Order: sequence, then structure tokens, then C-alpha cells
Amino acid sequence: MTTINHPAVVAEVTDFYLKYEEALCNNNLEVMDSLFWDAPEVVRFGIRENLYGSDEIRNFRQNRSSPKIEREISNFKVITFGKDAATVTLEFRRIINGVERSGRQSQTWYRFTEGWKVVSAHVSLLPV
Amino acid sequence: MTTINHPAVVAEVTDFYLKYEEALCNNNLEVMDSLFWDAPEVVRFGIRENLYGSDEIRNFRQNRSSPKIEREISNFKVITFGKDAATVTLEFRRIINGVERSGRQSQTWYRFTEGWKVVSAHVSLLPV
Repeated sequence: MTTINHPAVVAEVTDFYLKYEEALCNNNLEVMDSLFWDAPEVVRFGIRENLYGSDEIRNFRQNRSSPKIEREISNFKVITFGKDAATVTLEFRRIINGVERSGRQSQTWYRFTEGWKVVSAHVSLLPV
Repeated sequence: MTTINHPAVVAEVTDFYLKYEEALCNNNLEVMDSLFWDAPEVVRFGIRENLYGSDEIRNFRQNRSSPKIEREISNFKVITFGKDAATVTLEFRRIINGVERSGRQSQTWYRFTEGWKVVSAHVSLLPV
């Protein structure tokens, strides 16, 4: 039987996620990079782009035109499956081009020998 | 060491995913329902809606106004982690309100005692 949401695993993934959120909002490229899986198979669907592999993701982050992000988060949920797999989902509100928009973010995390990493991520805005 | 993309696991998840794609395009509610995790923790971010738990997902599907979906898929990728966790991502093109749109879909699958299930899903359109 798979253990869903074992408290120690949820606490661990939550800690990792909060590191990611802080790095994202402060555009800390090194921390974001270290929390994503370093592999050609990692996928990141962003608001306007589809990125495949660590190189495309790093390259996109290095070239963001407005790197710092201010956003208000709601419905933050960490769900863990056994000891090695987790999903993290949240909704956010953010001003984009002067307009307040609602978005969603989902990530799949996996625990490798070297620690928890995001192996797939998807960020999108709801239509206005 | 985690085994990434063990061929037998990839084949298994691919089979499950293809069943889901067929059910989605033909609006087979029973099959879609059986392939999603039956739990309050399951999440589905759709093109215009954020759904939490099996009841909200089932209710949304039963009330779709244009239930059958025609879409052209590209960059279909199944990545597996060990024997029990997987991500499935793809891009699609679809006519929506007379306009061809590009979208992305990502799913996290987990193998429970009763088989592989989608535990988190996110579908979105790229901005026009």
C-alpha cells in the first residue's frame, strides 16, 4: 500500500518547495537550477514557452526580461506518494503588463540519491 | 540509483496514456474516471478551470458543452522514475471557437496496488 502524505515526507518536500519559491521570486538562478533535475528529460511548460532539457530551461531563465516576480499564492498543496514522489500545485495572482492575472503552477518532484528535484513543471494563466 | 525510463515501465505507462487519450477524444467518461486517482487530493488544472478532488473532476466532465475533442499531438514524452512514478507531457493543436490554438498537457502518474492513475494534471493554451 502506498503511503500518501506521510508527514515527514510532506515536511521535506514543503521545505524544498519554499526554497524554490523564494529563489523564483528573487531570481536566484543558482538555487532554481539546483532544484531542477539536471537532465535532458526535464520539462518546463512556462506561460509562453515549452522548454525541454536543463539547457533550454537555464537559457530561458538567464534571458528573462523582468526577472523578479511578485505573486500572491493560494491553494498551495503538497501531495506525496511513498518516500520518493510528490506533486506540488498552487494558484497565483500576478500583475502582468499592468493587468492582474490568475495563474496555476504544477510541479512533479522526485527524490534522487542527491535529493529532491523538480522533474516536470507547468505554469499557465487562466484566460482573461 | 533510480532507474529512469526502464523500457518495460515506459511501455506500460504509454499503454495507459493511450487509453486515456482515446477516452478523452471520445468523451468516454467511465474510462477517464477509472484512469484518474479516486481521491480528494487529485488535482486537474484545465484550460479554464481549477479542479480539486475526484468529485469536481467528474462533475466538470459530465457538464462539458462540447464533449468530443479533436487534437493533433506533438512532442509526446513519457518519463518514468523507478517502477511507480511517471510524467507524461505533450503539446497539441486544436480549433477552439474557430481559431487554431497551441496547448500543452502534463500529467503525473503513480502506480497504486490497483494500477497506474493520473494523480495531477495540467492543460493550458499558449497565449495567441
